[in-house]
Amino acid sequence: MESLMQSGKRMGRQTLIFSNPGAVISSGAIVGPMEGRGPLRECFDKVLMDDTWGEDSWEKAERKMFEQAVRTAMDKVELKQGDVDCLLGGDLLNQIISANFAARELKLPFLGLYGACSTMAESLLIGGMLLDGGYANCVACIATSHFSTAERQYRNPLEMGGQTTPTAQRTVTGAGCSIAANANFSGSRIYRNVFITAGTIGKVIDLGITDANNMGAAMAPAAADTLAAHLSDTGRGVMDYDLVVTGDLGRFGSEMFIDLCRDSGIDLIGRHMDCGNVIFSRDQKVDCGGSGCGCSAVVLNAHLLERIEKGELRRIFFMATGALMSPTSSMQSESIPGIAHGVVLERK
Amino acid sequence: MESLMQSGKRMGRQTLIFSNPGAVISSGAIVGPMEGRGPLRECFDKVLMDDTWGEDSWEKAERKMFEQAVRTAMDKVELKQGDVDCLLGGDLLNQIISANFAARELKLPFLGLYGACSTMAESLLIGGMLLDGGYANCVACIATSHFSTAERQYRNPLEMGGQTTPTAQRTVTGAGCSIAANANFSGSRIYRNVFITAGTIGKVIDLGITDANNMGAAMAPAAADTLAAHLSDTGRGVMDYDLVVTGDLGRFGSEMFIDLCRDSGIDLIGRHMDCGNVIFSRDQKVDCGGSGCGCSAVVLNAHLLERIEKGELRRIFFMATGALMSPTSSMQSESIPGIAHGVVLERK
Repeated sequence: MESLMQSGKRMGRQTLIFSNPGAVISSGAIVGPMEGRGPLRECFDKVLMDDTWGEDSWEKAERKMFEQAVRTAMDKVELKQGDVDCLLGGDLLNQIISANFAARELKLPFLGLYGACSTMAESLLIGGMLLDGGYANCVACIATSHFSTAERQYRNPLEMGGQTTPTAQRTVTGAGCSIAANANFSGSRIYRNVFITAGTIGKVIDLGITDANNMGAAMAPAAADTLAAHLSDTGRGVMDYDLVVTGDLGRFGSEMFIDLCRDSGIDLIGRHMDCGNVIFSRDQKVDCGGSGCGCSAVVLNAHLLERIEKGELRRIFFMATGALMSPTSSMQSESIPGIAHGVVLERK
Repeated sequence: MESLMQSGKRMGRQTLIFSNPGAVISSGAIVGPMEGRGPLRECFDKVLMDDTWGEDSWEKAERKMFEQAVRTAMDKVELKQGDVDCLLGGDLLNQIISANFAARELKLPFLGLYGACSTMAESLLIGGMLLDGGYANCVACIATSHFSTAERQYRNPLEMGGQTTPTAQRTVTGAGCSIAANANFSGSRIYRNVFITAGTIGKVIDLGITDANNMGAAMAPAAADTLAAHLSDTGRGVMDYDLVVTGDLGRFGSEMFIDLCRDSGIDLIGRHMDCGNVIFSRDQKVDCGGSGCGCSAVVLNAHLLERIEKGELRRIFFMATGALMSPTSSMQSESIPGIAHGVVLERK
C-alpha cells in the first residue's frame, strides 16, 4: 500500500496528514439489549439488560452510557482523570445534553461537537490533530445515541406505537469511546498497532432528500463526496484500503453510496462496509439497519479496532455520516443536508 | 507583559500554546435592530431593519446572518471560496441548524461545534490550533444567535407575551465571524496585528443553579474555573492582560464571577469586561444584559479586534461562556452546567 510522503500537514483541499500520528490505545463500547442480540454480541464491553439502565429517564440512561464508555476505556489501561488531556464528543439530543452532563461527571477538559451521526469521526479527526500537533498527549473521543430518546425527539413518542416505513433505520442504543495517545504517552495499552494517520473534513452536501424516514439516502451523497475528496487529496485509490467504512447509511443508503461513487469513477470493488448493516441481523427485523452516532461508534470500538490490531485489516477509511436536519427545519419544508468526516486508521 | 517561553504546545492541564500563532485578518458582524440601537451601533457591518431579514421564519433569518457574516468577512479581504480551508462554528438551535444550513450554502469544509454560548471561543481555539499546527492556512470561526428563535426554543413562544424576571438576559440577535490565517497566507488583511497565541479548554462546572432565567449565575463558576486554570497553567496574573473578557454573564453573573475569582485568590483589578454588559445600554431596559453565542461573537468581531489592532489593548483573555442545559434536562429537574473556553488574543 502506498504511504503518504508529505512534509506539510495538509494535503489537497480537505485532508490533514498526521506525520506524528496518535495511536488508539484503548476503547469502550456499551450497547442496549437489542444491539446485544445482534451479530456483534460477543464484542461489546457491556450489554444493558433494559434500556433505562436503572435510571428514571432514557436521557439519563444515555448520559450514563456516555460516561461509562469513557470510564471503561480508561479503566482498561488504568488511566486516571488527570491522565486524559481532553474529551471530545457529542450525541444527537438537543444541546448535546448526554455529552455535556457526562462531561460534568468526568471532570475532563471538554470540546463539545455536533456532527449528528458523523460525530465519532469528527472527534477522532480533531483528537488526532491534538495528538499529532503535540497539543495533548492523551484524548478520549466518543459518540452516543439511544433509540428511545431519538424517537421521541426526532419523530414520535414511542407510546404512540407508530409503524416504521420500509426505508426506516433503527437508532442504535450505544456509546463507543476510543482513547488515543501520542508518543509522549508511556502508560499501558490494549492496542499497540492502530494509528490515526490522516483525516478528511467533510462539506455539507444536500441533494434535496426530504424524507426523514430515509436518512441513508440523505447522507449517501455526503459520504460519496468526502471519499472522492479524500482519494483526490491523497492520490490514493480504493485499492489502498482494506475497507471503506460508512457509519449508518443502511441498506438503501449503501446502495445509493455505491452508485454515486461509481458515477464519479470510484469503484468500491466490494470493499465497502456500513456499520448500520452489521449491527443488527436480518431476522431482527429492523428494516434498513442501524443508525445514530452510536452505531459507527460501537462498531468501530467493539469490532474494527480489534481487527486492525490483529492484522486482519491493515488500513481503513472510517467515515461517519450525519444528517443535519432538525424537526424544526423539516417542518419549515427544508430538505436534509448531510455531512461525512473521515479518518484513516491503520496498522503500523 | 510576560510572554510564554515554552517549547512544547501544551502548558499545564488545559492550555495550548501556539508558537506559530494564526493572525485574525478580517471579521464580519451583523446584528438585529435592537443591538443596532445599542452603544456599539457604529461598529457593526450591518444592522437589520427587522429581525426576519425578509425570510419567512426567524430560523431562516438566523441562518442568513451566519452565512452573510462569513461572506462579509471574506469579501473585506477578497477571499474566494477556495481560499478558506475550514469553517468552524455553531449556534444555539437544536442540531445547530443555522450553522449546518449556512455551511451548505458556503460549501466550505465544516466542523460543527456545540458549546452553547461558548462557541465563539471554542471555534477560535480549534481554529487557532489548525493554523498553528499547519493543518490549515485560513479558517473562518463563527457563532450566531437570534432572540426570537431562542425564546421559542428554550423558553416560551413570543406570542405568549410572557414577562421577564429581573435576572433575565436578552439573547442577542447577531452573528460574528473572525477569519484567521497563518504565515503561509499571502492575501490582503484588514487587521495586521491581532494574533491567537494560546487557548484554554474549559471543563463542565455545575454549582447547582436551576433557574433558566438566571443563566449568568449558571455560567459564572465555569468562567472563574477556566480563568484560574489559564493563569495557573501559564504562570501569568491578571496584570498580564489588559482585559479579561467574558461572553454573556450579564450584570448579576459578572458580580458572581468577580466574587468567585476573589474567593480563589484572583483579583480582577477592574480589568473584567462582559460582552453582555456592553451590547445594550441601560435605557434599553434589557434587565441583566445580553446573552447568546452571538453576543460575544459580535462584540469581539465588531469592537474588540479593532481595539487590539489600534493598540488600545495589547493582550486580552477572551472567554465565552456556555450554559449547557436543554428544556428536556430542565424538565427532568437537572441543574444547569456551564462551560467556558478561552483564547488569548494579542498584538504582536
